[in-house]
Amino acid sequence: MTKPVGHLQPPYYAVIFTSLHSSEDYDSYEKTALRMVELAAEQEGFLGIESASGDFDKPRITVSYWRDIDSIKNWRENAEHKIAQEKGRSLWYKHYRIRICLVEHEYGDRN
Amino acid sequence: MTKPVGHLQPPYYAVIFTSLHSSEDYDSYEKTALRMVELAAEQEGFLGIESASGDFDKPRITVSYWRDIDSIKNWRENAEHKIAQEKGRSLWYKHYRIRICLVEHEYGDRN
Repeated sequence: MTKPVGHLQPPYYAVIFTSLHSSEDYDSYEKTALRMVELAAEQEGFLGIESASGDFDKPRITVSYWRDIDSIKNWRENAEHKIAQEKGRSLWYKHYRIRICLVEHEYGDRN
Repeated sequence: MTKPVGHLQPPYYAVIFTSLHSSEDYDSYEKTALRMVELAAEQEGFLGIESASGDFDKPRITVSYWRDIDSIKNWRENAEHKIAQEKGRSLWYKHYRIRICLVEHEYGDRN
C-alpha cells in the first residue's frame, strides 16, 4: 500500500496498529483507510506512515511516525478520524491493537 | 504470515523491521524467514512476533516484541541470525530499516 519510510532522527514516536479484518464492507474500509493516510499526513507532527498486507483474512500492520506524544493525542481526537475509529471497531475489525512507542534508535541501508 | 500478537504489559520493547525485497532468491528468503521466527521464539526475553505482506515488490513489516533491550542485543548477535542478516543485506533486500522502540502504552479490543 505505501512506500517504506526512510531515515528519521530519534527520538520520535511510532504508533503500531495491528488489525485483523472481518469481510464486512471491505470496500468502504479501503476507501476510508486511504482517506485517513491523506488526513494523517496533514496533521501537525506527522512524520510518515507505512502499511503492509491488504487481505481481509490476514493481519494488516500500519505504523505511523510522529514528532511527539501530543501529535498522537491530537490525531486520535481528530473528528473525522474518530468517526473512522468507530466504524473500525463496530464493523471492519475482528481484532485490533494499538501500541504507542518511543523510537530510541534506528539504522538501515540508506536514507 | 503470522497471527496478531495479543496484549502485552508495557513497558517492553518493539523492533520494527521494514524491508523492500529484490526478486533475488525469494525462496531461500522465505525459508530463512520462517527459520528466524522459530529461532527468535527460542530466545530469552522474546514476547512475540507479527509480520505482514509477502510480495517481493511491496514493503514487508515485521514487528518483534522483547522484554528489554538486552534481549534485542543478544538476538542481534545470535550466530545463525547474523548469517541471515548478512544474506539479507547482500542478497534479499533492496531496502531495510530497523527501529528499536520502547512501548509505553497499548490498547485494543481484547487479550
